[in-house]
Amino acid sequence: MAVYTEVGEDDLAQFLADYDLGEMMSFKGIAEGVENTNYVLHTKRGYFILTLYEKRVKKEDLPFFIGLMEHLAARGINCPQPVKNKKGVALGELAGRPATLVTFLEGLWIRRPNVSHCQALGEAMAALHKAGDGFKLRRDNALGHANWKSLAQSISGRADEIASGLAALIQQEASEIEKSWPKGLPEGVIHADLFPDNVFFLGKKLSGLIDFYFACNDLFAYDIAVALNAWCFEIDGSFNVTKGRALLSGYNNVRKLDAKEIAALPLLARGASLRFLLTRAIDWLNVPPGALVRPKDPTEYQKKLNFHRSIKNASEYGLSA
Amino acid sequence: MAVYTEVGEDDLAQFLADYDLGEMMSFKGIAEGVENTNYVLHTKRGYFILTLYEKRVKKEDLPFFIGLMEHLAARGINCPQPVKNKKGVALGELAGRPATLVTFLEGLWIRRPNVSHCQALGEAMAALHKAGDGFKLRRDNALGHANWKSLAQSISGRADEIASGLAALIQQEASEIEKSWPKGLPEGVIHADLFPDNVFFLGKKLSGLIDFYFACNDLFAYDIAVALNAWCFEIDGSFNVTKGRALLSGYNNVRKLDAKEIAALPLLARGASLRFLLTRAIDWLNVPPGALVRPKDPTEYQKKLNFHRSIKNASEYGLSA
Repeated sequence: MAVYTEVGEDDLAQFLADYDLGEMMSFKGIAEGVENTNYVLHTKRGYFILTLYEKRVKKEDLPFFIGLMEHLAARGINCPQPVKNKKGVALGELAGRPATLVTFLEGLWIRRPNVSHCQALGEAMAALHKAGDGFKLRRDNALGHANWKSLAQSISGRADEIASGLAALIQQEASEIEKSWPKGLPEGVIHADLFPDNVFFLGKKLSGLIDFYFACNDLFAYDIAVALNAWCFEIDGSFNVTKGRALLSGYNNVRKLDAKEIAALPLLARGASLRFLLTRAIDWLNVPPGALVRPKDPTEYQKKLNFHRSIKNASEYGLSA
Repeated sequence: MAVYTEVGEDDLAQFLADYDLGEMMSFKGIAEGVENTNYVLHTKRGYFILTLYEKRVKKEDLPFFIGLMEHLAARGINCPQPVKNKKGVALGELAGRPATLVTFLEGLWIRRPNVSHCQALGEAMAALHKAGDGFKLRRDNALGHANWKSLAQSISGRADEIASGLAALIQQEASEIEKSWPKGLPEGVIHADLFPDNVFFLGKKLSGLIDFYFACNDLFAYDIAVALNAWCFEIDGSFNVTKGRALLSGYNNVRKLDAKEIAALPLLARGASLRFLLTRAIDWLNVPPGALVRPKDPTEYQKKLNFHRSIKNASEYGLSA
């Protein structure tokens, strides 16, 4: 939600000299994207997003992200397209940071998704999972289940500053989830962060997906679990089973969930809750002085985690048997 | 530099239903404008800026600002144009705040203005001053010289937290400047905040002026004094007389400065320094918890103030006799 890095016009002009985009028309920092700095750039050739990768994105991962967007677009997924410079390279450097230009994707993200938005998201996610097939690069999920125990450990001394009993809860859950993590489920490239602000709509139609900077190889059903948390809870904290049903049936229409994936959903949803609980708690406990971003409330995900612990089976998410 | 107010898609759709702009294509919060919340809106009809006025802008002043942009544009000044809704009204309400749509102005603001940018700014400011002639509404400068003594008083107890001796300096300056404020200088509508981020360039050409939310009736030469401070000092705090000369000669080419204005410049520049020193100091001392905006450094304007106190006459700004 902030411009972390100010780009001077001389640096920008030098960066753009390597591209074939024509005269610059406008350049504005945008208040979207929590991890990176983003500008909307307008040139004679059109509108683009210029992204400067801040410290949380590892430079060695960028070929995966850039290659993935190209791979997906070539398979009909509407997502930003990396723009290559005159040397055919899509990754540059600007203001001391790795930087890329991607095409501007039209669409609005939905602050309050309704049932039909959830259905559309399910369909688009399944299409994304199928389109990732054949992508040659691989990236482990740096925030996946194998990392939760050590993340939990790293804040165990301070988690109770956020909510009493939180340290015990996250340690216990990290340990239990690791032991019970399902084996043999279908996996491939997942988005891993399909929150509403990464999904654009034009009118009622889903128009595209953005922000692939958490994408990785992991269980497809884990991506669904992340989205159930992000799309199907109401502001009062209650799970909306009609939205859950819409998301899951949308998905199932495009890529059929198998019995093991369905059986694993409650555990995966606990895991997805724990992942965002952990990273939000870490951010909450480590707000730097002068921060331009308000940390998100970790306890929202504590409540979601507790909901999933109470679930008997996936039918409570709206899956028909 | 922040989105203070999040606008939901339902509220936005309802607001836009009153306009004739066609289908919405995108909507992004932008990290520009310190006082208000701004979004770039793209519809079938083009690109627009949607501004939500936060608490610092008084609702009763909005007809002045909106009318002024219309008046100026009708006289050839390139500035954002208020877009009227189907009822012919340019001021609406959105998310509980007064809101307007204006046309999107192409151009980039210059982070490090050079001499020719200063010259172009001088010319554009003089053209603006001439174009304001005949505008029927009037707005006193709410942050003008008549207010500085009380602003200084309001922080006299805490100003030394910023820099030792600052409280005494601002009280003394506020008092001296009030006593010596020049009378009988040409006045009219001024921008009052012509910092580089409010002036757009396309290539080397000045393409337009934005952000009229401090505009008011005051001395023309006071506007020049604000701009000398904002454009002609180097990062190391030194005044660049070549830039000053360019700005002043650009201005003079379009609207001839009279002898009284020239003689008053050092005092007006002290006043302009005090004005930004005061408001920055107030912001600095009143950062709310969780603020999304970093306060600007007040001592930058303390140094500028001290520079102008050392000036013997306006020739030191680069004015040839």
